[in-house]
This record gives sequence, C-alpha cells and structure tokens, in this order.
Amino acid sequence: MTSLVNKISGAVSPLKVGATVDTGLKLKEDDPHEGTVSLDKVPGKIIIVGVPGAFTPPCSSHVPGYVQNEDKFLAKGIKEIYVVAVNDAFCTKAWKKELGAEGSKVHFLADDTGAFTTKVGMLFDASGLLGNHRAQRYVAVVEDGKVTHFEVEDEAPTVEKTKADNILAQL
Amino acid sequence: MTSLVNKISGAVSPLKVGATVDTGLKLKEDDPHEGTVSLDKVPGKIIIVGVPGAFTPPCSSHVPGYVQNEDKFLAKGIKEIYVVAVNDAFCTKAWKKELGAEGSKVHFLADDTGAFTTKVGMLFDASGLLGNHRAQRYVAVVEDGKVTHFEVEDEAPTVEKTKADNILAQL
Repeated sequence: MTSLVNKISGAVSPLKVGATVDTGLKLKEDDPHEGTVSLDKVPGKIIIVGVPGAFTPPCSSHVPGYVQNEDKFLAKGIKEIYVVAVNDAFCTKAWKKELGAEGSKVHFLADDTGAFTTKVGMLFDASGLLGNHRAQRYVAVVEDGKVTHFEVEDEAPTVEKTKADNILAQL
Repeated sequence: MTSLVNKISGAVSPLKVGATVDTGLKLKEDDPHEGTVSLDKVPGKIIIVGVPGAFTPPCSSHVPGYVQNEDKFLAKGIKEIYVVAVNDAFCTKAWKKELGAEGSKVHFLADDTGAFTTKVGMLFDASGLLGNHRAQRYVAVVEDGKVTHFEVEDEAPTVEKTKADNILAQL
C-alpha cells in the first residue's frame, strides 16, 4: 500500500536552473492506461507548471493565466506548456475541460503515482488537505532539456512567483 | 511517503451482511481540511456506494442511477445516500457538480487518505489506471449501523450487482 514510492527508482534530480530534465518517465495525458508524454530533453522551449491539485481553488486560478496567455508564450518561442499534477488522468482531463483549455497548447498531465514529481524533487506531504503527497507549485522553463528559469512557491497555495505574468516577464 | 497506510490504525472490519459500520473515522464532504461526516452507526436507513474514481467513465455511469432514482430510494425509507471515493474533496465536489447532484440526498464523500476504505476492507490496488489504491465498487445498505444488504463487483469497472435498479429491487 505504499502507493507513491513503489514505482520510483533511480536518483532524485531536483529541478533548478542548469539542471537537465531526464527522468526516464512518461506521464499520462489522454490514455489513463499508459504514460505517453515524456518531458525529458524535449527539443525547443517548453514550460512545466507543477500544481498541487486539480480543482483546488489556487490551482484553478493559477493555471488559467497560462491558458489565457497562450499566444504571448508562443510569441516568446514557447512550444508547449505542460501542467503536471499528482492526480489521476480522469481528474486532470475533467479539470482541463472545466478550465476551457481543450485544443490549446496547454497540456494537462497526470503524474498519478507521483513518480515524476518525486524524481524532480517536488513532492511534498499534502495529506492534511488532499490525503496524500502532491506536487509543490513550481514553474520550470526548459530549453532543449535544460532548465533556464525556475520558480517554486514557498507555500503550495501561494500563486506569486509562478504566475503566468511573472514568468512571461522573464522570457 | 506511505500515503495510505500511515493514518490507518485499528482492525479492518470488512463490510458484509450483519456487520456493524463502526470505523471511528470521519469523511470529508464540504470542508477539505477536516472530515465532518461519520457513517458509523447512523440511525435509520442509509446507502453507502463505494466507487473507484471520480470522473472515471464507469463511475460516471454508475452514480447517476442513484441521483436519478433518489425519490424511489426515499420512498423505500432510505434517508441518505453516500458515495465514497478515494479522491480528494476538491475532485469529489467537482464531480458531484458535473453529475448534477447538488442539492440532492446523494452526498459525495472524499476518503482522501483511503483510511475508511481500508477499514471496511474495500481497498484495492488501482495503480495501473489511477496511480494508487482505491475503493472497490460496492454498495452497502445499512440500517441503524448494521449492514442489511451488500454487493461488491468482481471487477471494479463492472456495474451490475451494484446498479441502482438492482439495489432498489432488493429493498
């Protein structure tokens, strides 16, 4: 019943400026049975947005900033934006629909075992509010697999450093 | 990081006909910070519907049967219906809204740590599809705290024995 740890192997490689995203893992997007999306060493510029939980009020105010500003991110050379949550693929999909992000370049990825979030050093104990371990709120801008900008909130409910506007201003 | 086991103490008391629901636990309904709903020894007749996951297609076809037939259940003397899932309270609430069950006697309870589901012997490993341990699909009719009818599906995606129509026919 160690639901989060049993699938995680290999060293943790925390996200930070200069780090390479190379987890060896795939995340679930449309297929709940199997991970199909790798964020490892993706060519070009992408953004990874880590969030504590689908349908939570802070995340539901945080993520729309990326959806609404999609064009501005694309104009800055960002190819895709990946929202990653330790939720199952059914919840991330339902949440994407609720936020009106279908058809956008903002992908909602389910790290349902927490393996990816653990590998990038972003897992924290959210048992009190959410019952298990989740992702901290963070944003990594990644170019050809290397982190060029990285922000993590001191407290998961806070949306300041990781706000779309703040990230846009840095690009 | 043993997200499900660390809050669970005391003996497992599996649901079955004749068993008493007495877990010592409270489940979350509206307040994600704290469990407020106890299903222990509730006076009168209630139904507990265990489901593997909010927003999954089988559960999203299973649960509406209880919402749509609410009046028939009430006419049979059922006071309340409690859908219990190992999901967080934000997801169960969003799911309730999507299923149009707001304001009904069908409550959606978050067993976010899996503690309740473990105590009643219904936890199973759903890691492949959902990333962690979840509830089997079951229905318990409970009268003054004692289980009078109990059905559990052989496979979690199946909705046969636990269908609203089938349970109604037994009351």
